[in-house]
Amino acid sequence: MMRTGARVAARGLQRRFGHADSFRASETAVKSSGGGKVELPPLDTLQFGHTFTSHMLTCEWSRGGGWEAPIIDKYQNLSLSPAASSLHYALQCFEGMKAYRRKDGKVFLYRPDMNARRMIRSSTRLEMPGFDPEQFVETIKKLVWVDRDWIPQERGYSLYVRPTMIATERCLGVAAPETAMFFVILSPVGPYYKEGFKPIKLLADKNNVRAWDGGVGDYKVGANYGPTIRPQRMAGEKGYSQVLWLGPGDTVTEVGSMNMLFYWTNEAGEKEVVTAPLDGTVLPGVTRDSVLTLLKEWGECKVTERQVTIHEVIKAVQEGRMHEAFGTGTAAVISLVNGISYDDVEYPIPVADKDGGVALRLLDTIQGIQMGDIEHPWSVCINP
Amino acid sequence: MMRTGARVAARGLQRRFGHADSFRASETAVKSSGGGKVELPPLDTLQFGHTFTSHMLTCEWSRGGGWEAPIIDKYQNLSLSPAASSLHYALQCFEGMKAYRRKDGKVFLYRPDMNARRMIRSSTRLEMPGFDPEQFVETIKKLVWVDRDWIPQERGYSLYVRPTMIATERCLGVAAPETAMFFVILSPVGPYYKEGFKPIKLLADKNNVRAWDGGVGDYKVGANYGPTIRPQRMAGEKGYSQVLWLGPGDTVTEVGSMNMLFYWTNEAGEKEVVTAPLDGTVLPGVTRDSVLTLLKEWGECKVTERQVTIHEVIKAVQEGRMHEAFGTGTAAVISLVNGISYDDVEYPIPVADKDGGVALRLLDTIQGIQMGDIEHPWSVCINP
Repeated sequence: MMRTGARVAARGLQRRFGHADSFRASETAVKSSGGGKVELPPLDTLQFGHTFTSHMLTCEWSRGGGWEAPIIDKYQNLSLSPAASSLHYALQCFEGMKAYRRKDGKVFLYRPDMNARRMIRSSTRLEMPGFDPEQFVETIKKLVWVDRDWIPQERGYSLYVRPTMIATERCLGVAAPETAMFFVILSPVGPYYKEGFKPIKLLADKNNVRAWDGGVGDYKVGANYGPTIRPQRMAGEKGYSQVLWLGPGDTVTEVGSMNMLFYWTNEAGEKEVVTAPLDGTVLPGVTRDSVLTLLKEWGECKVTERQVTIHEVIKAVQEGRMHEAFGTGTAAVISLVNGISYDDVEYPIPVADKDGGVALRLLDTIQGIQMGDIEHPWSVCINP
Repeated sequence: MMRTGARVAARGLQRRFGHADSFRASETAVKSSGGGKVELPPLDTLQFGHTFTSHMLTCEWSRGGGWEAPIIDKYQNLSLSPAASSLHYALQCFEGMKAYRRKDGKVFLYRPDMNARRMIRSSTRLEMPGFDPEQFVETIKKLVWVDRDWIPQERGYSLYVRPTMIATERCLGVAAPETAMFFVILSPVGPYYKEGFKPIKLLADKNNVRAWDGGVGDYKVGANYGPTIRPQRMAGEKGYSQVLWLGPGDTVTEVGSMNMLFYWTNEAGEKEVVTAPLDGTVLPGVTRDSVLTLLKEWGECKVTERQVTIHEVIKAVQEGRMHEAFGTGTAAVISLVNGISYDDVEYPIPVADKDGGVALRLLDTIQGIQMGDIEHPWSVCINP
């Protein structure tokens, strides 16, 4: 009796004050889990991040009270103070993950533990709360399961999962927020670029710089995205899908929505895949990590993380040593690049087939792991 | 008849579709202008940006429809889509202005045209809409007038005006937003720093960089603020009020909430006030501009905008050539600095009196202009 009573009292205390360290998936209150009609639009009309499912997850945090219980409810607007520091000082970070539905109806997430750890890193960089990465994954599993009928089953399609953390404190002082909210929304998606899986062209930007030493380029924070939109629009007007961001010394960093990799024969005559190192100016991508891991397992070529200048890239193209260039990211998975413009000159990049290159085989392998054609621990089943 | 009919039809069209170029102050719909009891807390308990007035202004924009009519209503939460790009990609910018109530009851804004122009610049940098700067000022006048009883009359106190622009589009693609909202909230404030008008100490940060060439350090966008909070907290734990941000080559840039100025005898033996130039890495401050203008009018010393390194500052301190250092900003007006730490060594900065320095006279002059002791075109009366 005493023991049970004490346990009940402790639980009461927990519920009232929340948990300092993390929200708990097991405490999720499901206020709505059905009713919403699944109206998946025709897949060929799906635009990235335009359609949302019937439900969402929210979870509130305060510095004094810790994490409250997660809530799954109908997809709806947030009620936010006009003084919320997420709207004034960019106290916001997010993740991008995907859920896949296999032929047998089972639903899988791809390496969600990596998103969990990266989000904790982003959130705490902005003085917002951390959480237990396992609880993050378990909580998201619950939400995705509720909206599983929204997941397209076709290859190349998936349910994009957008965990977001925002500061909600009603205060205009530039300071660590006292309150925050974690929320997750879901969006059925197809190919990220309007080109589909066709190769895209990039504009290497000499005027605008995405990230810098001592900055936050390696965190998935809103602040890294807004300022890139104007340069990206201007690149689009010149016919380029995305901006290839350069760092000091004209080093190739990343594409904003993707990490950037080159498959070339280097100046020493070795076949090599090379990409920017995690030096603080590029996002530590989950797909980037997957690709580097697979390439090392395959052992067909050297795999190098080092700073490469745009001039080295151009020289390799001019000397016929460039075999292919591609971006990696959760939204786009693998995106072939068939041209890079620098200083008003466009340099064509070869597009290799599966035998001549690595990009399409990497895409096949990762999609195979995601869709269940290849059994792999990176795919995590969410079925209860 | 025809003409009037055509005019009415044109007006109907305008109202339905809004104005492409700007909202119109004259169209402001006042849904609430009273009722809310003015509960100004005791002035000595006022914390910056914690207390808000009874009313706020909102105005919606869409790329297709232009600006709708501004609305003055009760201060209340915003209803925002969880997919709003202001919450994911930091599509947000703001301004900081102050309204002052004089002894005769008249209310004045300080140089609001400068805030208007800077906000247009910030908003369009993020692919959000611009507006007519005069309409911005006239619209804000209307709101401040409604809440004029919230303005403290004591010297050093004022009503802080926070115009904000956020993207409201419900879409996760990283792209120019199709919809946005302009809103204004008001907060009665006293001294910005908890030290009041006492001198503060700064920590020159070697590890974190606020802004960089090719970035957005000269725009008042949320992205410039969130990432500074952790370094600022760490500086606070060492006993420093704010971070003094350094640029490439250890140049002194700004303080985040203030521009930074030094009054010294330069190496050529001339008395000089020096501050960082508007090279893209510092905010073009309204108070900075006011101070430089006044100093040039006074003609007592050289006034120079150039890059100064922290090493030059330290050398001047060590050689007894530093007379005073101070920050300028709307929130703090003028803030004396009596110490700067660099590389774990604290360099004491003299605090001059009115005769020995310029900072306190600048503060007196600007406050005099704001409070009406000095008639000056920078003070703009809002009384209808």
